[in-house]
Amino acid sequence: MSATEDNNAPPKGPQCRVLIQQCVQAELHIDDANLVKIDRGIVVFVSFFAGATEDVVRRAAQSILKIKLSENHDGKLISVLDLPGSVLLIPQACLGGKRKNNAVQYHQLIEKNKGEVLFKIMESELQKHLSSCPKVTAVADETSRPCVRSGTYGNRQVLKMDSSMGPFSHVIDF
Amino acid sequence: MSATEDNNAPPKGPQCRVLIQQCVQAELHIDDANLVKIDRGIVVFVSFFAGATEDVVRRAAQSILKIKLSENHDGKLISVLDLPGSVLLIPQACLGGKRKNNAVQYHQLIEKNKGEVLFKIMESELQKHLSSCPKVTAVADETSRPCVRSGTYGNRQVLKMDSSMGPFSHVIDF
Repeated sequence: MSATEDNNAPPKGPQCRVLIQQCVQAELHIDDANLVKIDRGIVVFVSFFAGATEDVVRRAAQSILKIKLSENHDGKLISVLDLPGSVLLIPQACLGGKRKNNAVQYHQLIEKNKGEVLFKIMESELQKHLSSCPKVTAVADETSRPCVRSGTYGNRQVLKMDSSMGPFSHVIDF
Repeated sequence: MSATEDNNAPPKGPQCRVLIQQCVQAELHIDDANLVKIDRGIVVFVSFFAGATEDVVRRAAQSILKIKLSENHDGKLISVLDLPGSVLLIPQACLGGKRKNNAVQYHQLIEKNKGEVLFKIMESELQKHLSSCPKVTAVADETSRPCVRSGTYGNRQVLKMDSSMGPFSHVIDF
């Protein structure tokens, strides 16, 4: 069997789609008793397609932190690591939907249990890279130090968000 | 010259990209003195690619109103016209960006003056269809009647938004 016939081969289309929005503050209400919150930084919505691999998710996490989409006080575009800012990661399966007439179909999405594993990997990769970034660790006051916060996979949640001066929304496929 | 050689032919890729997010309330601060606001409905970010035509923009506007992405009280997916709900339209050129390594390029975007014309067309099409929708006109209290509000093309603005229980983000190309 050739590699091209391998059913386990990753799909040809994207494996992971993210929507990145800049915020000055964002709060995700997980349920009545729990919320996660960040100050200046990025809100990252993520969706995984069938066949997505751990490797792509790790690369996507690094790219999210390194891509120059945040504006510093001089108006220069820099990465969220250089800002330095926080990340609010939100699972958002519907981002991977495909329009057909007046409905959206979700056939291309990964199975829920596999998506949950990849979401955890993305979360821990973001955490690892952000928390070891010199600009982040240099923030002396722990309470204002940039951080990664995340929603719960498979749950419905409410987001309250104030965008930065923009607002800036970018969609990136990996 | 055949149609395929016509330099004025529309491009093969998408002409218009929209990001639709459900909201229970959203406020766009145009400048210090002006803001536009909607209650329950959808926030629509829009970006136009080079070669986009009026025709595609008119079709996109109708589709935005008819696509079933809003949830009624029974959890059934219905259109924003059937909700009925409001629309906050926000110009968002960066939505049409393309990642290259750690930067995003915007070569595919339409020229600003052409984009501004298309934005006005989309705004007036949304307005026309929403304001003539029976479910909307049936709302007796004018102050709570669903409406279309929009940002200013080419300006930087700040968005404050409370998502519906979801949050739901859909990206659709036309």
